[in-house]
Amino acid sequence: MTMQSVRPRGRRPGHDDTRGAIAAAALALFDELGYDGASLRAIARDAAVDPALVHHYFSSKAHLFTSVLVHPDLDLVARFEQAAEGDSDTLGHRLAKAFFDLWEHPQHRARLIAFLQERTLARRRLLAEFLGREVFGRLASRLGHGNALLRGQLAASTLIGLMAGRHVLELGALSTASARSLVEPVGRSLQHYLVDAW
Amino acid sequence: MTMQSVRPRGRRPGHDDTRGAIAAAALALFDELGYDGASLRAIARDAAVDPALVHHYFSSKAHLFTSVLVHPDLDLVARFEQAAEGDSDTLGHRLAKAFFDLWEHPQHRARLIAFLQERTLARRRLLAEFLGREVFGRLASRLGHGNALLRGQLAASTLIGLMAGRHVLELGALSTASARSLVEPVGRSLQHYLVDAW
Repeated sequence: MTMQSVRPRGRRPGHDDTRGAIAAAALALFDELGYDGASLRAIARDAAVDPALVHHYFSSKAHLFTSVLVHPDLDLVARFEQAAEGDSDTLGHRLAKAFFDLWEHPQHRARLIAFLQERTLARRRLLAEFLGREVFGRLASRLGHGNALLRGQLAASTLIGLMAGRHVLELGALSTASARSLVEPVGRSLQHYLVDAW
Repeated sequence: MTMQSVRPRGRRPGHDDTRGAIAAAALALFDELGYDGASLRAIARDAAVDPALVHHYFSSKAHLFTSVLVHPDLDLVARFEQAAEGDSDTLGHRLAKAFFDLWEHPQHRARLIAFLQERTLARRRLLAEFLGREVFGRLASRLGHGNALLRGQLAASTLIGLMAGRHVLELGALSTASARSLVEPVGRSLQHYLVDAW
């Protein structure tokens, strides 16, 4: 249940305020109800805006989610969706490349590292669930796998471990290896988790 | 540099005290100098015992390390070394099986989860470096790979991500999947990181 009574109500005057109000309502509802539980309708209601405005400012629920949890420019879902277009034989490779391209971007890297080090376990769990289900799980599901969610969560875990090893634990060889040199081995791992029969 | 002057010196009377003194000196030196930097000789000196006693109580430096950092019964290195014996074509599978066998043991699982949630990043880094270098890096090196350390750290990172996904982030499908069902996909990933040409 959301505590509507204690939240400020009423339409905000400017555009930035409207965007900010939607973002604040979204973050509170994602924290409270999770990705699935927080509907765009409820977010619009809590932000006291018309539901159409949520779509106006954020292209999708997934984009709204990554915008408020990490950063608006990140758009993880669009990146991975774009990388997923094409032959399934090289899907893992393309996803790994999209992942490392993100890391090559210093601002995105800083944001993702900040997120990894986030103190609240609940927020890290929220993003990890999203990655496993909405990003990688969807791709595995599209390939017809019955265990698509497990596959997606294996892919998400392997990338989370990789980010932790490279940028939090700062393991010697792994943190100094070029992104380019890691695309093949990590891509092969993603390929097996998401595409191969097992 | 160790601060020898402020540490209590002198031989301890009983066996448990000797073992405890070695363990305390070892933990302090591993924290201070890392796994490579802390020699068994220095540990014996700081514990004020004969170096032969270190070997008497702990079968190897690796065993001493996992004993004081996690638990004496864990003996990660011996488990993985034993699993590594045999055909390299199925090495990843055997390592994954050894890893999941460890997790099937409730006490070991609890200890490893406690370790994952350890607040000091330095300690988590110490164990992750050890896993990547002394456990998996050694195996890759034995197979003649020039990039053995990177391979070992990829293997360590993937298992760390998996443990985090299953037991800290508690991702739905991943945390409820049986260890048995995960041996094949995770084993294939380890096989590629440690054995395959890339």
